[in-house]
Amino acid sequence: MHWLRHYRRAALPGDLVAGVIVALMLIPQGMAYALVAGMPAVSGLYASLLPAVAYAVFGSSMVQSVGPMAITSLMVGTAIGALAPAASPLYVVLSQQLAFCVGVVLFVCGVARLGFLSNFFSRPVMSGFTSGAALVIAMGQCRPLLGVKGAFSVAAIHGPSAAMGLVSLAVLVLARYGLPTLLKSRSGRLAEILPKLAPIVVILGATAVVAMWGLERAGVQTVGHIPAGLPVLAFVASSEHWRALLLPSLIIGFMVFLSSQSAAQSLAQKRDERINTNRELLGLGAANLASAVSGGFAVTGSISRSAVNYSAGANTPLATLVTAALIAVVLCVPNGWLSLLPLPAMAAMIMVAVLGMVDFSTLSEAWRHDRSDAATLLATTAGVLLIGVEEGVILGVLLSFASLVWRSSHPHIAVVGRMPGTEHFRNVDRYAVETLPGVLMLRIDSALVFNNTDGVIDRIERELQSHPTVRHLVLVLSAVNMIDTTALLALSELNKAMRVQQRALHLCEIKGPVMDRLKHSTLLTRDLTGQVFLSTAQAYHYLSGLQTAS
Amino acid sequence: MHWLRHYRRAALPGDLVAGVIVALMLIPQGMAYALVAGMPAVSGLYASLLPAVAYAVFGSSMVQSVGPMAITSLMVGTAIGALAPAASPLYVVLSQQLAFCVGVVLFVCGVARLGFLSNFFSRPVMSGFTSGAALVIAMGQCRPLLGVKGAFSVAAIHGPSAAMGLVSLAVLVLARYGLPTLLKSRSGRLAEILPKLAPIVVILGATAVVAMWGLERAGVQTVGHIPAGLPVLAFVASSEHWRALLLPSLIIGFMVFLSSQSAAQSLAQKRDERINTNRELLGLGAANLASAVSGGFAVTGSISRSAVNYSAGANTPLATLVTAALIAVVLCVPNGWLSLLPLPAMAAMIMVAVLGMVDFSTLSEAWRHDRSDAATLLATTAGVLLIGVEEGVILGVLLSFASLVWRSSHPHIAVVGRMPGTEHFRNVDRYAVETLPGVLMLRIDSALVFNNTDGVIDRIERELQSHPTVRHLVLVLSAVNMIDTTALLALSELNKAMRVQQRALHLCEIKGPVMDRLKHSTLLTRDLTGQVFLSTAQAYHYLSGLQTAS
Repeated sequence: MHWLRHYRRAALPGDLVAGVIVALMLIPQGMAYALVAGMPAVSGLYASLLPAVAYAVFGSSMVQSVGPMAITSLMVGTAIGALAPAASPLYVVLSQQLAFCVGVVLFVCGVARLGFLSNFFSRPVMSGFTSGAALVIAMGQCRPLLGVKGAFSVAAIHGPSAAMGLVSLAVLVLARYGLPTLLKSRSGRLAEILPKLAPIVVILGATAVVAMWGLERAGVQTVGHIPAGLPVLAFVASSEHWRALLLPSLIIGFMVFLSSQSAAQSLAQKRDERINTNRELLGLGAANLASAVSGGFAVTGSISRSAVNYSAGANTPLATLVTAALIAVVLCVPNGWLSLLPLPAMAAMIMVAVLGMVDFSTLSEAWRHDRSDAATLLATTAGVLLIGVEEGVILGVLLSFASLVWRSSHPHIAVVGRMPGTEHFRNVDRYAVETLPGVLMLRIDSALVFNNTDGVIDRIERELQSHPTVRHLVLVLSAVNMIDTTALLALSELNKAMRVQQRALHLCEIKGPVMDRLKHSTLLTRDLTGQVFLSTAQAYHYLSGLQTAS
Repeated sequence: MHWLRHYRRAALPGDLVAGVIVALMLIPQGMAYALVAGMPAVSGLYASLLPAVAYAVFGSSMVQSVGPMAITSLMVGTAIGALAPAASPLYVVLSQQLAFCVGVVLFVCGVARLGFLSNFFSRPVMSGFTSGAALVIAMGQCRPLLGVKGAFSVAAIHGPSAAMGLVSLAVLVLARYGLPTLLKSRSGRLAEILPKLAPIVVILGATAVVAMWGLERAGVQTVGHIPAGLPVLAFVASSEHWRALLLPSLIIGFMVFLSSQSAAQSLAQKRDERINTNRELLGLGAANLASAVSGGFAVTGSISRSAVNYSAGANTPLATLVTAALIAVVLCVPNGWLSLLPLPAMAAMIMVAVLGMVDFSTLSEAWRHDRSDAATLLATTAGVLLIGVEEGVILGVLLSFASLVWRSSHPHIAVVGRMPGTEHFRNVDRYAVETLPGVLMLRIDSALVFNNTDGVIDRIERELQSHPTVRHLVLVLSAVNMIDTTALLALSELNKAMRVQQRALHLCEIKGPVMDRLKHSTLLTRDLTGQVFLSTAQAYHYLSGLQTAS
């Protein structure tokens, strides 16, 4: 709570305004995401209250808005849906239990400083996962949008619901894509915030329509009874389900961390702050434990809400506390009207929110830069859509590591020569360079490790076979960031074979950390047939001198 | 059969001699390794006959000796021992079925050109595995060596058996370590081969002792009845066990391939030949299928026997055919005396053979060069000894990949400067180099990929924060062998942040393959705040020019 002790009065107006605006955004969003998670709508408000306070106390980001989030809710729904019937008492218990497990996972990762594990999720994997999950959520909202109960068919579409859903959708799409253009001339912040408040206007309007025309009796589904009062602090667990929740809580814990982390990082970059990853894990852990004991479900930092919080002027977590206070007020004042919130309008709101998360820009960047990254991205999306949400992200992570291993197994090796008039050496195939007769200079573009040793040695042997007049082989190690034991032994054998062939093996540009290890090896201390040079230029100079001498 | 069509008569004497010597070595060894595999002794002879012929026809190495091998036999014993009581009819069926599966695995790997997968097994892992397996085998031989039946206890030691076992052990140890010293003055080949023939002398001597003194009636165990005649071609499978054999056959298949490959490679290097990995897989697959239909078990190329074959003068696979013919003769002539082969002497032979496989040299090399490789080696050995043979090697492979990922996640980054009077740039902490005020040159010693992007960017940002006067950051990419999409996006964000800070980001020494991708990115085509230089020297020259101008 460092920020509270050093609170500057100048920060107050911004925090108050941002707190109110985020509350207006969060109240309908929280309830909608509760429905995505298969939970009663009110639990979305509970999940926005105490967890936000817990994060304000323990978290590291100043402007992060922690609460329900679309993808996390989808993952909760998928995980618990496999264990209990939707909206059953067991379902509610298991959702809280899952939030507890997620909190423990995050806490343990924070204490054990495992934040670095987030590095295992590449941006293409995260982008493909987000897009896939957004599509899954949007497809899941088609039924409530059109008032379909049971299996989907055109005949099952409920006219009044569909009308309300589609009109809401149209208004929200216009607000999202039309308003910013309209407001372009106005201040940047207003143009950024106003469209984000459209959902509450649409939801309130749709609720008023339901109330005026009694549409709930005409078959338009509403969120139904919202119990008044603050959440009761309690934690019930189903002892037989701990094991079944283990894997989901690990995966959801990671996703909670990754989305919160990317939100916090992008805002910290704007505010010129630094995020403490392990502190962030502790804050998120506390938020999820708070959610578990106050009737909520797994929560995380939301990128879109945090951006609104920042744009609306939030300076400290006080803004979050203001938001929480307003939600508490909504829960405590008579709120019968909340029960009339119509599901078709909520579905429209969810759809517009998640379709904005479908990410084409990373795909196009990956496609231009690296087809294999683009393929991993698309495979992750396809995995999420066709196999499952958790399975898709696991598939993506495995594919990105497989491609890493594949690439490190197939290193690039270039024959190099000297750029005329310089001490710079480049690939003979790309540049007009000078080479010395009887000398072969090979630049190996990879760490020399067990999974590429055979390939590299094989390539070197082939180069030697195809250049039978070569007496001096120079390995340029400027790009060799490591030589492991497997590679060292193979190099020693190569050196031995070259001695028999009366050829010399020279090494140059060995980096400091590589040399620190290599200098103790028998290859360098005793066996090497050639010499070790500091730079490629020195090797070139020495070998050209040898030739002039002979 | 390319070698047969071009057979030179000059190769004949060497092939004949080598064939005979290898047969003398293989007959007791084959039977002993059959006992290690939990199979009847005669199946070791079967496994040395048809499989060797199949390899001679399909394999690629000229001097490889394919047949039973200690570690493969141990793995067969472990895998089948979990499924059937030792020496039961089901055990024999399953061993052949396993050889069939191993053959299929090798064949499929050969056809699908999966030979590169052998690169996943680093030398420390292979060394640790071999040492661990050798110790497991040696410990398993203590009971037959001392004539213990049932649980091991001092009281259970059988005097005559123990005497025979220990005397055999002593003679074999002397022959192995004493004979070469004694023969040092003689021709190298003789000194190499004679000690390898000691086992047959010891076995024959021990058998003679048993026959003369009727020791089998005094309780010295012998191999028992050896059925006369060639193996019957037949294949019986237990249909319910296919699934249980899947994982063992994958792992054993790999080990068969790896040991054969390393034998073939070390000999090919001596003979200045090249091994075709995928052809080798086909040859081993054929050998195992042949073993499956002729009463054998999983076979592989043996390093020690192949070395003897080569030293004894083998030029072509004809030597192997001579060996096979001799084994066929032994099976067909009256061979009642084989049944008197005493188990204590066999155990001594196995112990001496496998203890020679315990590999300290790789451990000491790894210890000096790279502690993490040494730790992986020891963990593999410990895993084999404490958890299990297959589990140990899987543990080793996982550890070596984990260490690979860990290292690529924590790259070395150096601040560099110019070596006076050269165009060579080195770490400021290691060399007395020249730097320019207001310019920071960082050399990143790793591919820039998703699992190290955050760490590298974090390090760069910290360097910039601790050098507030720096206006030009030069990233020296001489050791950056790849930039993936995650890293590209992060570099673009860094560049954006530097623009706000009125700093320039320059790149130099981008390698050809990296540039091929990068040149399409918006970072290079549009956004870069600084410039791209071919060499570090050019960047240095340009920036020092800027400073003289200002």
